[in-house]
Amino acid sequence: MAEYFPGPGRNHLFVPGPTNIPERVMQAMSRQNEDHRSPAFPVFSKSLVEDTKRLFKSAKGTCFIMPTTGSGGWECALTNTLSPGDRILTYRMHSYKAVCIVHNETSTAVTNDIGGMREVIDELGHPALLLVDAVSSIGGIDFRMDEWGVDVALTGSQKALSMPCGLGIICASPKALEASKSAKSLRCFFDWADYLKCYNSGSWWPYTPAIQLLYGLRAALDMLFEEGLDNVIARHRRLGEATRLAVKAWGLKLCTTNPTWYSDTVTSVMVPPHIDSGTVVKLAWKKYNLSLGIGLGDLAGKAFRIGHIGNLNELQLLGALAGVELVLNEVGIKVPLGSGVVAAGAHLSKSTPLIVSRL
Amino acid sequence: MAEYFPGPGRNHLFVPGPTNIPERVMQAMSRQNEDHRSPAFPVFSKSLVEDTKRLFKSAKGTCFIMPTTGSGGWECALTNTLSPGDRILTYRMHSYKAVCIVHNETSTAVTNDIGGMREVIDELGHPALLLVDAVSSIGGIDFRMDEWGVDVALTGSQKALSMPCGLGIICASPKALEASKSAKSLRCFFDWADYLKCYNSGSWWPYTPAIQLLYGLRAALDMLFEEGLDNVIARHRRLGEATRLAVKAWGLKLCTTNPTWYSDTVTSVMVPPHIDSGTVVKLAWKKYNLSLGIGLGDLAGKAFRIGHIGNLNELQLLGALAGVELVLNEVGIKVPLGSGVVAAGAHLSKSTPLIVSRL
Amino acid sequence: MAEYFPGPGRNHLFVPGPTNIPERVMQAMSRQNEDHRSPAFPVFSKSLVEDTKRLFKSAKGTCFIMPTTGSGGWECALTNTLSPGDRILTYRMHSYKAVCIVHNETSTAVTNDIGGMREVIDELGHPALLLVDAVSSIGGIDFRMDEWGVDVALTGSQKALSMPCGLGIICASPKALEASKSAKSLRCFFDWADYLKCYNSGSWWPYTPAIQLLYGLRAALDMLFEEGLDNVIARHRRLGEATRLAVKAWGLKLCTTNPTWYSDTVTSVMVPPHIDSGTVVKLAWKKYNLSLGIGLGDLAGKAFRIGHIGNLNELQLLGALAGVELVLNEVGIKVPLGSGVVAAGAHLSKSTPLIVSRL
Amino acid sequence: MAEYFPGPGRNHLFVPGPTNIPERVMQAMSRQNEDHRSPAFPVFSKSLVEDTKRLFKSAKGTCFIMPTTGSGGWECALTNTLSPGDRILTYRMHSYKAVCIVHNETSTAVTNDIGGMREVIDELGHPALLLVDAVSSIGGIDFRMDEWGVDVALTGSQKALSMPCGLGIICASPKALEASKSAKSLRCFFDWADYLKCYNSGSWWPYTPAIQLLYGLRAALDMLFEEGLDNVIARHRRLGEATRLAVKAWGLKLCTTNPTWYSDTVTSVMVPPHIDSGTVVKLAWKKYNLSLGIGLGDLAGKAFRIGHIGNLNELQLLGALAGVELVLNEVGIKVPLGSGVVAAGAHLSKSTPLIVSRL
Repeated sequence: MAEYFPGPGRNHLFVPGPTNIPERVMQAMSRQNEDHRSPAFPVFSKSLVEDTKRLFKSAKGTCFIMPTTGSGGWECALTNTLSPGDRILTYRMHSYKAVCIVHNETSTAVTNDIGGMREVIDELGHPALLLVDAVSSIGGIDFRMDEWGVDVALTGSQKALSMPCGLGIICASPKALEASKSAKSLRCFFDWADYLKCYNSGSWWPYTPAIQLLYGLRAALDMLFEEGLDNVIARHRRLGEATRLAVKAWGLKLCTTNPTWYSDTVTSVMVPPHIDSGTVVKLAWKKYNLSLGIGLGDLAGKAFRIGHIGNLNELQLLGALAGVELVLNEVGIKVPLGSGVVAAGAHLSKSTPLIVSRL
Repeated sequence: MAEYFPGPGRNHLFVPGPTNIPERVMQAMSRQNEDHRSPAFPVFSKSLVEDTKRLFKSAKGTCFIMPTTGSGGWECALTNTLSPGDRILTYRMHSYKAVCIVHNETSTAVTNDIGGMREVIDELGHPALLLVDAVSSIGGIDFRMDEWGVDVALTGSQKALSMPCGLGIICASPKALEASKSAKSLRCFFDWADYLKCYNSGSWWPYTPAIQLLYGLRAALDMLFEEGLDNVIARHRRLGEATRLAVKAWGLKLCTTNPTWYSDTVTSVMVPPHIDSGTVVKLAWKKYNLSLGIGLGDLAGKAFRIGHIGNLNELQLLGALAGVELVLNEVGIKVPLGSGVVAAGAHLSKSTPLIVSRL
Repeated sequence: MAEYFPGPGRNHLFVPGPTNIPERVMQAMSRQNEDHRSPAFPVFSKSLVEDTKRLFKSAKGTCFIMPTTGSGGWECALTNTLSPGDRILTYRMHSYKAVCIVHNETSTAVTNDIGGMREVIDELGHPALLLVDAVSSIGGIDFRMDEWGVDVALTGSQKALSMPCGLGIICASPKALEASKSAKSLRCFFDWADYLKCYNSGSWWPYTPAIQLLYGLRAALDMLFEEGLDNVIARHRRLGEATRLAVKAWGLKLCTTNPTWYSDTVTSVMVPPHIDSGTVVKLAWKKYNLSLGIGLGDLAGKAFRIGHIGNLNELQLLGALAGVELVLNEVGIKVPLGSGVVAAGAHLSKSTPLIVSRL
Repeated sequence: MAEYFPGPGRNHLFVPGPTNIPERVMQAMSRQNEDHRSPAFPVFSKSLVEDTKRLFKSAKGTCFIMPTTGSGGWECALTNTLSPGDRILTYRMHSYKAVCIVHNETSTAVTNDIGGMREVIDELGHPALLLVDAVSSIGGIDFRMDEWGVDVALTGSQKALSMPCGLGIICASPKALEASKSAKSLRCFFDWADYLKCYNSGSWWPYTPAIQLLYGLRAALDMLFEEGLDNVIARHRRLGEATRLAVKAWGLKLCTTNPTWYSDTVTSVMVPPHIDSGTVVKLAWKKYNLSLGIGLGDLAGKAFRIGHIGNLNELQLLGALAGVELVLNEVGIKVPLGSGVVAAGAHLSKSTPLIVSRL
């Protein structure tokens, strides 16, 4: 298969998704099609539908693994719980049916406090459903479906799960499942009822599932649980903090001003006003095979983003930060060479545990 | 990755989808994630959106390649062209907005005459849109989007394209695109307008696409065009006819009674009334690692199905037919051993061309 | 990667090696290089050096897994046990140092009686070493290193192990190891002493091993032991017998006249004198994507060969036999269509067990 | 396939071989076995035997691609050109048959001057053959077979070619080929005459070749020639120089004292006398998933090695150097944090060209 713009060595993929796929997941997915109606497939399917709940820290929820993306997952969450005309809100609440919130916003690199949101709703004694887009947090940032009383949460395969894009994973609380019975939005492909019917009949899938991605998910879950979900979250926190320390050492500003909002899966970096942040991203790609995220929306031209999400380790990050330092200087943002790598490295040196399997 | 019910040798996959993935497609898909916002991706994306039109034999159409399945593609076709309350029909027409039809029905193994349907609509001078589910025909059975005046047609990656499941490919006529501007059905993930906006801006994708599957599609299209689409269709006809000749030689009945309806991608075989067709499928899988399709709906227990679709050749089919013969006898349907293989083989012997590249 | 002479569907690989690689082995080998001096590698290496002994049915032997082929393995066997000037023989023995014999000859499709050979040597009370080329038998035809008193036996990865070519596996008895201490043949790359030094030091490899092939070997051994070595041997016997029954049903002659010499991994088929057997092989490849073996040596032009070795099942074989029937007729050897498939199928029908994992 | 000591993220492989395999090579190798006696294989084989000569910058030479390792390649070079009793030497010459020299010594990180050696031999008017072990230089350090009058040179696949281990590639001058006719050393597996016979007959291989590795070689050569051999050599020089600058910035000593001997594929770093260099290598692996080379021979415990060979880019190296800095400090070798990364980065910043395909 032709590469369109090949360069020597590995691509350094530091966008906030898609993320780096580990070899074990790639091996698991390099397989033939099979008859998903064979007796083998339900055994396998059940293991997935059960185990994905652990990603959400949910015992009470029900998971749906759909051949779609995070965007499709969000549509799935909305159409299964709401009816045309229902009002939804994030801030003020009166007669609202649902509160919709993004757990981790990748454009601004902000992580919202879902637990806190739940407390507010509870204090108001409001019956609204709490729907959470956790696409870029689940599996990287602590998320507690049951504890926080989240009603629907969802993620996509190409984020912290470090898989190819193509799966949307939605977890619904019992209250959400109940709500879906009366929700009148048009839905068919994304309909929970069809899935639940198949769960009960043991056929598991209302239409052909993305077989190879399911095997990839099995491997991704296995790796995640072997490392330990909380260890994975700690690793993301470590890499996130190291990145922010680097940015500060460079003398640049984070888009995220309030530390309580810091995201551990992506960092958005403001560039000085006279520079177009797009030039940083372009040069990184053209010279160092480093893929960074551009600024989006209001931040277009003003910020670039470093994704540090998924199956990633310390030296991968330090290599990328070393590259960012070079690029910043080369486009005219004079940051002290080495400053970011030193700040990040010092933090990683003291916070990184030995690899458990290698003790 | 554990196999749940492993057996020696290859699985003989003869369901009407998912189909056998050729090595070249698997190689193309065994690749890392990449930044789909890099300058490399639009070049690649454009080639796909353009070239998939050839699958539909359409010059005027517009293709959408979505991270979904055939079922999702069908929802996409409907929601983009219709509004709530619109009436759709297959047979009689008055005030109908659209005619919806399946080109190839896999449960009954029937191929419908889309060109003929168009003539009827034209004779009536009716303005209805013609929407065609061509999931199990495109790339295997002749399909002529422009010539037949089809307004929306769609297929899925795991059928004649011989890829993993995960892509829905939808082709829309200019008339369908026009209709989508006023169609009021709720749609977001499947919305053509969002895609068209991205086509125009050169970003190509409104959300993260299924990167690996797109590279697989590139390889699948390359292989298909190298073999020649009409040669591929002829190969499907050859294998379909061979299979039907085998069934007749066994003295069994096809579900499809009228030869004009014969499907070249799947054959549905009636078993004698005293036998449950499910036992044929089960024994094939348990003893010979042969995956056949069960009877669906009214045909449950009465028929089994042999899929002969995708990247498949003559001896793969003869091996499967030899297996079916053994299984039929072993479950008590006494067909003359060798009769089907001989009938199919004789047809293949005289109709199979030499492999062009090996002359 | 370009295919030089592509054809639709799968290649039917029925030469007596290289053989069909199962997906699980391919997955295991699709992996990055690693430092073979890391603490991880000896653990893995030890498992291989130990477990390969089971292939040879040897408890007392020592295995060497070398980055070479079967030919290299044979050179390894000879140079480690013999000195220049040593006499070797198969038939008569006086002052001979070693008896060299091929267990399974792929050109003639003859399996020799190694146990019987041992008895002759024992009756003569002769101290000669017994060296056995078991390249195309080990893992497919019963082989009993210890019971038969074999001193050196060897195989290659691309035969019954169903792996890519690139590993030679040599098993040496204690007597052979002892002989190697005084054997004076020049050897370096193939030297056992260097390997044994590394076994003792725990570094396992005197030079960089073929890492990916070793992981493939691990998977191949796992699959073989899961199926059960004796079940694998029984499967080869079943497929061998089915092939021979097909040949007889066609009215053609086997090269192997004496049934006690029948090989269960390859069948050599004589064609009528007026036909060049090469035309059979050529047409099979050109029309049916079927790879057969040509006649070698004295049999060139007079015979063709059907390999039935490695990870193969019943319907794969029946598909190939159906193809051979067609080809034979098409080149002018008029055999009754279906006769071979029926004879083989009848035998397989009654002798093939249900797949254990699927009961 | 189980990982024995898994860790999150990628392994940073910085030993002087095996090296990092690019995805394109892995894809090329992820393929089924095939019949190497089919008409397709000679076409492919010829392309390889011809194109590998470009690696050696040789027009007059003949290449042999053998299923073995670099060690086997060296045995091949010696046994094909020399007879028992022949004297070989590196320094003084009288009645010597051959001069044997290593182009790039990985233990000491020294690159020898082959062109200079040729001049000395010429000045002496000595007819000795010049045999060069170029295992860790070819494809990374400039090598000029014809210009330097080298008679035999060889490399292995797992070094600068960035492939798995398993191929030895040997290039022989016309003079070496002539010498092989009278050389009396025992050889069989490695015999040039057998290969030449097959080259002439068009069968190309005297025994089963390592098919998958050959397809990997095709991809590796394609990538190398697309990047441009001299650009690849310049990239190795750039990375080598950056590494040495880092070592100097740390205040540590290189094993290689004379700059004319600097190796561009590996750097050997002396540690202070009170520290065991093995602790550096161990901690790098245990904490940062970084694989470094240990000190060998006299340098055991006194030096560690950083390989920078193969398909590698700037940020991969900077990540590794950042890791080495952390590890040095953590084991008690107090080097200024950031010093090495800054020194290397500054050099790379000014010497790294934009990626040609992305301009």
